[in-house]
Amino acid sequence: MRLISFRNQSKTRIGVIKEDKILDVQALHEKYKNQISVDSFEFPTDLKQLIEMNEKSIPYVEQLIESHGRENLDHSFSLSEVEIMAPISQPEKIICVGLNYLDHCKETGLEPPLSPVIFSKYANAIIGEKEAIEIPVNSEQVDFEAELVVVIGKEAKRITEEEAAEYIFGYTIMNDVSARDHQFSDGQWTRGKSADTFAPIGPAIVTKGQVVDPHNLDISLKLNGEVMQQSNTKNLIFRIPYIVSYLSQSMTLKPGDLIATGTPPGVGMGREPKVWLKDGDRVSITIENIGTLSNTVEKVRVTQKT
Amino acid sequence: MRLISFRNQSKTRIGVIKEDKILDVQALHEKYKNQISVDSFEFPTDLKQLIEMNEKSIPYVEQLIESHGRENLDHSFSLSEVEIMAPISQPEKIICVGLNYLDHCKETGLEPPLSPVIFSKYANAIIGEKEAIEIPVNSEQVDFEAELVVVIGKEAKRITEEEAAEYIFGYTIMNDVSARDHQFSDGQWTRGKSADTFAPIGPAIVTKGQVVDPHNLDISLKLNGEVMQQSNTKNLIFRIPYIVSYLSQSMTLKPGDLIATGTPPGVGMGREPKVWLKDGDRVSITIENIGTLSNTVEKVRVTQKT
Repeated sequence: MRLISFRNQSKTRIGVIKEDKILDVQALHEKYKNQISVDSFEFPTDLKQLIEMNEKSIPYVEQLIESHGRENLDHSFSLSEVEIMAPISQPEKIICVGLNYLDHCKETGLEPPLSPVIFSKYANAIIGEKEAIEIPVNSEQVDFEAELVVVIGKEAKRITEEEAAEYIFGYTIMNDVSARDHQFSDGQWTRGKSADTFAPIGPAIVTKGQVVDPHNLDISLKLNGEVMQQSNTKNLIFRIPYIVSYLSQSMTLKPGDLIATGTPPGVGMGREPKVWLKDGDRVSITIENIGTLSNTVEKVRVTQKT
Repeated sequence: MRLISFRNQSKTRIGVIKEDKILDVQALHEKYKNQISVDSFEFPTDLKQLIEMNEKSIPYVEQLIESHGRENLDHSFSLSEVEIMAPISQPEKIICVGLNYLDHCKETGLEPPLSPVIFSKYANAIIGEKEAIEIPVNSEQVDFEAELVVVIGKEAKRITEEEAAEYIFGYTIMNDVSARDHQFSDGQWTRGKSADTFAPIGPAIVTKGQVVDPHNLDISLKLNGEVMQQSNTKNLIFRIPYIVSYLSQSMTLKPGDLIATGTPPGVGMGREPKVWLKDGDRVSITIENIGTLSNTVEKVRVTQKT
């Protein structure tokens, strides 16, 4: 399934994408709940809750759509009609892995790291599909990074690589937007990586059953229509089960946690001349089978306080 | 006021400390809500919610305690009777400032940084008063750091130093526990700073009105009764209004966000021989007028999976 969060009549709703239409899962639940036989459970109000209770919620939603999806498709929204929100707005953690593509290491002439480079973003940075990435007033070097994101489905503490698959809920896309001036002047990357709007995420979370091999997905980023990054997740240095197990040795992973797996070559700071995001730019990331995440870019204009 | 979160009959409650007793604020609210004249509002279920609605909740709670605190004090809990929880368990952000004490810089021979060094912890690291700091199986160098924490009271975006005070709700204490081996082998500090249990916080949040000058508070840390760190917050290099304003230029600060202001000299890695936390240790941090935060230390033993 391709799960999204969308806004309809100023309410945030859970949706499932089917044939380029959005099925409103909560509406289907209200309409048919008495016809679906499952153990009773309180229907989730957002995708994070749905993921937390995924052992019950996912079979239920699948049954709901199988039984009643088709008859409701005609009067469903099309993707372009609604405002798609970030699928998860308040994860406990956004964990990022740096320098994790072999071809990116080759390009920069750096040795591949011996262990994953881990850094963080805060939830204030999250925006959704079509929202604007803001260039802060205090940065001149805002860059883009296409990344495949693992969505955790089940609390994970000190799990092995072999166990990792059962703790993964699905996959999505993140643009790991980075203020290079802050990232490198600070040494620690937190501030440069976590400005407001620096974590566009989505549009959909694709459940793991739909992704045959997460280590064989084409990944690319276009800036104003021009391809800037192009690679395949087979080039990941630290593979997903290793990363999930590795992190879980230190921190308990929670349902809804997002792990961004690193970016391939072609980012703006690696080019000559360097390319920084500017007012009016359009950035889109496509990952095979996961989707396309598109955002605009706006320079923040500081005016009178309101 | 000194606000705490505590557990009673397996429920988490909001409390106010008065004369070493804990007044159960929710219980007082239930008992007297019809006698207190305020605009109606839904009473918060935890301290983070109370902070989010602090313009209404704080005057109300103050009135509740002034009118009915004394008569209920006799049948209140004493501090030693209850389990005190971390005051906030799910902040959007735990933002930490590194190398921010002048006397710590002097001790290490390092130049004071030109701008604040910012790094993060995730909420999985939070524990409360008396809970055990766990030494993870994968670290041999777990260290302590006494820190004064600013608790944000109001959403803050691009505010000035002069405005910062009105966005602060109060103060608490954090032990910025750090796995030095991971911190320095990784370069980025996220993993070494954010293992489970690495952010003991509390016991109380002291509202800012109770703190005459946050830049003149004695701060000390004892390990097994021996003083290891001792300084005063007047030695902060970047002062609190500057830090709050600085961060708010990049990230929108939210009510309940925690900003740890850095640690004074005397940490374990700065000693010869170096001192690492070990099984059975007791660590306590005292900040003048804010309180004392005490934790034990346990080495994680990995046994059979349950």
